[in-house]
Amino acid sequence: MKKNLYRKELAGFKPYVPGKPIEEVKREYGLTDIVKLASNENPLGPSPLAMEAVIRAVKDINLYPESTAVELKRDLAVYLGVKVENLVIGNGGEELLMLIAQTFINEGDEVVVTAPSFGIYNTSTCLMGARIITVPLQKKNFDISGYCMAVTDKTKLIYLCNPNNPTGNIITKTELDELLKKIPKNVVVVLDEAYYEFASVNPDYPKSLGYLEERPNTIILRTFSKVSGIAGVRIGYLVTSEENAAEMNKIKLTFNVNRLAQEAARGALRDQEHIQKTVELNYKSLSMMEAYFNKKEFDFFPSNANFIFVNAKQHSKIIFEELMKKGIIIRPGYFWGWDTWLRVSTGTEAQTQKFIDELEVILCKG
Amino acid sequence: MKKNLYRKELAGFKPYVPGKPIEEVKREYGLTDIVKLASNENPLGPSPLAMEAVIRAVKDINLYPESTAVELKRDLAVYLGVKVENLVIGNGGEELLMLIAQTFINEGDEVVVTAPSFGIYNTSTCLMGARIITVPLQKKNFDISGYCMAVTDKTKLIYLCNPNNPTGNIITKTELDELLKKIPKNVVVVLDEAYYEFASVNPDYPKSLGYLEERPNTIILRTFSKVSGIAGVRIGYLVTSEENAAEMNKIKLTFNVNRLAQEAARGALRDQEHIQKTVELNYKSLSMMEAYFNKKEFDFFPSNANFIFVNAKQHSKIIFEELMKKGIIIRPGYFWGWDTWLRVSTGTEAQTQKFIDELEVILCKG
Repeated sequence: MKKNLYRKELAGFKPYVPGKPIEEVKREYGLTDIVKLASNENPLGPSPLAMEAVIRAVKDINLYPESTAVELKRDLAVYLGVKVENLVIGNGGEELLMLIAQTFINEGDEVVVTAPSFGIYNTSTCLMGARIITVPLQKKNFDISGYCMAVTDKTKLIYLCNPNNPTGNIITKTELDELLKKIPKNVVVVLDEAYYEFASVNPDYPKSLGYLEERPNTIILRTFSKVSGIAGVRIGYLVTSEENAAEMNKIKLTFNVNRLAQEAARGALRDQEHIQKTVELNYKSLSMMEAYFNKKEFDFFPSNANFIFVNAKQHSKIIFEELMKKGIIIRPGYFWGWDTWLRVSTGTEAQTQKFIDELEVILCKG
Repeated sequence: MKKNLYRKELAGFKPYVPGKPIEEVKREYGLTDIVKLASNENPLGPSPLAMEAVIRAVKDINLYPESTAVELKRDLAVYLGVKVENLVIGNGGEELLMLIAQTFINEGDEVVVTAPSFGIYNTSTCLMGARIITVPLQKKNFDISGYCMAVTDKTKLIYLCNPNNPTGNIITKTELDELLKKIPKNVVVVLDEAYYEFASVNPDYPKSLGYLEERPNTIILRTFSKVSGIAGVRIGYLVTSEENAAEMNKIKLTFNVNRLAQEAARGALRDQEHIQKTVELNYKSLSMMEAYFNKKEFDFFPSNANFIFVNAKQHSKIIFEELMKKGIIIRPGYFWGWDTWLRVSTGTEAQTQKFIDELEVILCKG
């Protein structure tokens, strides 16, 4: 890298590695029939109302999108019971995470995360030149007292992925209350609730929107990529104080969210039937996998999301590659330093059964 | 703004103000029939092949897009005669401009721009804490010697919007050669060619891709928003050295370009017929406006793009508002400090004639 040409933050930057796309596996392995259980996508496909909305809007794609996503925000405000002014809409949750970093994080700040967790917290923090403090999970849970001890005068922001990706455990209401009581109010608390609709069936899952009034520096992040099945159009949103939202909306890209995504999201929001079907299928698929893992005496995290994290007792790189040869894509745990663990997204019943059957074949050979 | 909560760069930040969207004008003025000549959109609508591609891809929007846009890059590499490794694909040109800033611009650096020009150069520079040096246009042209004098040891990057937005004038091959000869090779030169397909019919317009080998720190930015008419899906690209492209691709959002945009762009690239029709209509619309402006003895910039910048000799805020009442949206020059000037996008012949007729009524009243 040429000295001084690039920003110094780029020198040690390690990009996030996403799940392998179906198209790529088809090309590389010469396969046509792929089961992708690697990116926590919706196995039922996109919300039908979202698809209809896209098709209706396609004739207008010569026009720039609405910069402020005014109609989607109005729908969302009603849906969530918040004000339009509390909302920021992004090109997927990933853009919102980068926008949070650009809004709040200075060089020299400290940012607290858990591990293993979603890699974008680290990449966005690194890009702004701040320091990451990692508080690993303890016994399959967030380490609340560890988080409290990690917060110092230099802490600008803490990330809580709830449910946590890749493990699927939640931080409960009781734990969150304890944590928020102990850390200063000027610390920005990001609750990443990408898997909200799956987790909210758990009575211990906190109702985070209720925290905003008391604690304005809370940011609640959600997405249409998971339960609504429109990851491909890229759209997510966050809820925070009006003041924080105004600052973020001020510096976001003018046209960050494309026209089709805005319409798809409005369609998806109306499509509660698709959301319900997706959540039901999810817990069916999880039960199938849990039953198999119990039979194998595999350790796993109880999941509150649309994936499960399991210790398959062999190196995940090998299992990953063997499954790929069968046309099944999962996420090997060695990415997170959990070498014998796998993160497997939920699928249709047939996809889930195929994964179980092929894993069994691999493990018997191994 | 709370002290120390937000990054200091946000304090004086002035966001870019886009053209008013049709939906907003309909709402505010209770109109149903709007002619929008404010955002340099394609009056023929989107490329039909792009629309077909979107409709084909909609069933797959539950899947994340390809992170590296591999198929589009392959198409583009063939189309442009460059390597896949020279390309970066963005969520519109705007995201690429922000990515350029995030890759190259440190606090304390200097960045040279012209004025009036595209506001995103300034906002992206400000967000990275660098200093903007402005070299205003001189006699309707880029001030080449002014640019040369403005470049110092601190200069990291210069922006050349070619053709320039909002004025439509170009920097010629001769001028560009002179400029590049005089400034150090470590200065990054960004040639924003958003209006490339319109300008390239001018024999004096530089063939910028040819400069890359000799001068790797050149960045050529193009978009599908203008001539291809798919601004609504957000997709643009840039061409630079393999090394620069690798750094930018390393830090870009993992899923920055949505699935439908990637497919739409591939369709648009195949749709040379739509491009040709658009360029032809553009110069017809420009001729109609130029004839009228000449009759009125209005000063205007000869345009190499799909808009024209004209001095209507009355305050642009008034003309803007009067036109809006008639359902015509243009861009008033006071945004750029050119109070009596208007930027008017080209339209269909009927739209162009309607603009001319309504402007004439306003001017006769005024």
